[in-house]
Amino acid sequence: MRIVVIGSGTAGSNFALFARKLDRKADIIVIGKEKTMQYSPCALPFVLSGKIPKLEDIVVFPNSFYEKQKIQLMLETEAKEIDRERKVVITDKGEVPYDKLVLATGSRAFVPPIKGVENEGVFTLKSMDDVRKIKAYIEERKPKKAVVIGAGLIGLEGAVAFRELGMEVLVVELLEHLLPTMLDKDMARIVQQHLEEKGISFKFGVGVSEIIGSPVKAVKIGDEEIEADLVLVATGVRANIDLAKKAGLKVNKGIVVNEYLQTSDPDIYAIGDCAEVFDAVTGERTLSQLGTTAVRMAKVAAENVFGKNVRFKPVFNTAITELFDLEIGTFGMTEERAKREGINVVVGKFKGSTKPEYYPGGKPIHVKLIFRKEDRKLIGAQIVGGERVWGRIMTLSALAQKGATVEDVVYLETAYAPPISPTIDPITVAAEMALRRFK
Amino acid sequence: MRIVVIGSGTAGSNFALFARKLDRKADIIVIGKEKTMQYSPCALPFVLSGKIPKLEDIVVFPNSFYEKQKIQLMLETEAKEIDRERKVVITDKGEVPYDKLVLATGSRAFVPPIKGVENEGVFTLKSMDDVRKIKAYIEERKPKKAVVIGAGLIGLEGAVAFRELGMEVLVVELLEHLLPTMLDKDMARIVQQHLEEKGISFKFGVGVSEIIGSPVKAVKIGDEEIEADLVLVATGVRANIDLAKKAGLKVNKGIVVNEYLQTSDPDIYAIGDCAEVFDAVTGERTLSQLGTTAVRMAKVAAENVFGKNVRFKPVFNTAITELFDLEIGTFGMTEERAKREGINVVVGKFKGSTKPEYYPGGKPIHVKLIFRKEDRKLIGAQIVGGERVWGRIMTLSALAQKGATVEDVVYLETAYAPPISPTIDPITVAAEMALRRFK
Repeated sequence: MRIVVIGSGTAGSNFALFARKLDRKADIIVIGKEKTMQYSPCALPFVLSGKIPKLEDIVVFPNSFYEKQKIQLMLETEAKEIDRERKVVITDKGEVPYDKLVLATGSRAFVPPIKGVENEGVFTLKSMDDVRKIKAYIEERKPKKAVVIGAGLIGLEGAVAFRELGMEVLVVELLEHLLPTMLDKDMARIVQQHLEEKGISFKFGVGVSEIIGSPVKAVKIGDEEIEADLVLVATGVRANIDLAKKAGLKVNKGIVVNEYLQTSDPDIYAIGDCAEVFDAVTGERTLSQLGTTAVRMAKVAAENVFGKNVRFKPVFNTAITELFDLEIGTFGMTEERAKREGINVVVGKFKGSTKPEYYPGGKPIHVKLIFRKEDRKLIGAQIVGGERVWGRIMTLSALAQKGATVEDVVYLETAYAPPISPTIDPITVAAEMALRRFK
Repeated sequence: MRIVVIGSGTAGSNFALFARKLDRKADIIVIGKEKTMQYSPCALPFVLSGKIPKLEDIVVFPNSFYEKQKIQLMLETEAKEIDRERKVVITDKGEVPYDKLVLATGSRAFVPPIKGVENEGVFTLKSMDDVRKIKAYIEERKPKKAVVIGAGLIGLEGAVAFRELGMEVLVVELLEHLLPTMLDKDMARIVQQHLEEKGISFKFGVGVSEIIGSPVKAVKIGDEEIEADLVLVATGVRANIDLAKKAGLKVNKGIVVNEYLQTSDPDIYAIGDCAEVFDAVTGERTLSQLGTTAVRMAKVAAENVFGKNVRFKPVFNTAITELFDLEIGTFGMTEERAKREGINVVVGKFKGSTKPEYYPGGKPIHVKLIFRKEDRKLIGAQIVGGERVWGRIMTLSALAQKGATVEDVVYLETAYAPPISPTIDPITVAAEMALRRFK
């Protein structure tokens, strides 16, 4: 069997490795535009800040690692077209025949059509090349005032990096609060306050209408001109679906796949940022675009290419980040989104401490749980705290993935030790708050 | 309604508070031997080491807190007998009538009949008074060589405290390895090595046959006499069941209760260390004797006293500790116990890192997962690592509590961020190792 993968990012690289584990003999060919195989785009802000010392370190494995496993690499190669009749990928370096094709074409930074967005000193933060350019620019121009457009994860992580490099930083977000798809306003406020204490400013409900100067000197927000000598555009990503579309495959915002990750052509799979998945709460098609989702899709697609019939489960988009001294973890439905989509929810909130009161060093932790009224199921959670947020959001996400109800969280068996966690965990207290409102 | 609670520890105190939340009017009376309500026995080793500066701080709430909630306290009072016919508790301060009675009589340190065990300088570590005595002895005698009998949680936490206070420490354990009910030998070895690096010595498979001198000068192990000027006996606890037994209630090693936590007398409940629970893996009656179990039992019993009919779920005994720079988390069945009990299991093990390779500061983490062969369910886990063990053991325990199979763990949606966790989590890799062995 000859399996061709288009895309050398997280999804494509992991697919190749999983496939090789499952079958020692199949021909596995990866076509990729870049010089290397997968690296973690989530690591880019930390390279920028210097926490990860070397950009090259974020490349997970050297090319030789794949080649040793007899994965054939066609890097710095562009797939131009898919001829589904002949089962051939047409690239700028010739034709590549396939039995099974895996589209792992990823996503690209979305850049809104702001006047001056192509000026010098305006960047996105999606690729290793982006980091190289920003670092070179910082080296050369020594910018002092950064404006970040977009208060999503990458925007905020970029803002923190700039701040850590000593710049004044302003974040501008069109919506009402930061991390608008991950948090509700009440939780976002806690994060905002922490970032403001660390010297990052915010403007919400407004957009940048113009970027002035090349190299950039200022941005225009409404009538106001604000000095800036570096601009980061972090307004989300778009799935790369052109190749699939051109090949006549079914696409929406992403490539449409069934639960076995097959596109409308059963010999062609799509995985990672370019492909749609099912939302675990609504059951509707959505884009996940998380690295962890890409890895799981790669695993499932590899199983299915070899005839295993594994279903890819709907996603909750469990996510975590660290911004200065705060950890922020979320998954599933926010209260705001539930309201927009007409889903009746019951919310439980609790502010506690990460350690028992008598043990020194406990940090505040805010827990917000969202249950669906109809079936009492946990459909979302938001946690903001000084430590051990990851463990709590993972615990809650695992529960939600297994269909847990409010009672399951209230009576959850937790692990307690004085230096680590309280006897009665904040997540169970938050669930109790919700349970009372159910009655 | 008149509800009487015997026992002012974690179970009794929490019961009173939960009951008061559920009913503003009921008479709630707590009979307790000590001067204060609940404190955390798990915190005692940390008071010893000085990490918790003041012993009194571990008392969760002052007595006035309960009294403000109109919980009537009869402290420094001993319940002598229960007259079930007349529904009266007979105490050393008079009779206390009840409509519903809750036994929360707790447990006491088990002291084996070693010659010299009553000598000066030999202690247990179960109560605030124990800590007062040990502290006074250390102050007065400045002991340099401690011997700890028993390598369970309290024994090891005590050993660490003595070591941190500058003593030479030897731990003697009758069984083959440390934490014998929580860990298998392979995992215990990792912990042992860390403790040895920190200067704690071990002897396994042997017992102390005599304690010599008062104040203690040495212990005898086989033919060997080993110098020691402080001995901690940490050989487990026994449930306090005498009162229940005398009242004719059904008892085994603990007081027997049904899943609503009622004893053989439906008007009498038993909760906390004195009561038996159901083991989530085997379904058999067992003693849990964890603080978290006591709290959950208190909650469930309070609901049931007011007619709610909530079932107390079988327990996995999820537990966590920190010993120097290692976190150790466990729940459920060990491989060794499964072998003893004739349960066929499939094991998955993995040693990974707590952070992605490219991010500085990751620490080793060892994961061992135990699945039941018959139904592929996760029935136990052991994790030893440098950080974020709590979150992983909680996630796995939550999954097990919801009946997760090996596939549920393999395909678990996890949360990834470079400073916090790897893209592919060690727990999912360990599950994959197990999955391969299923085939």
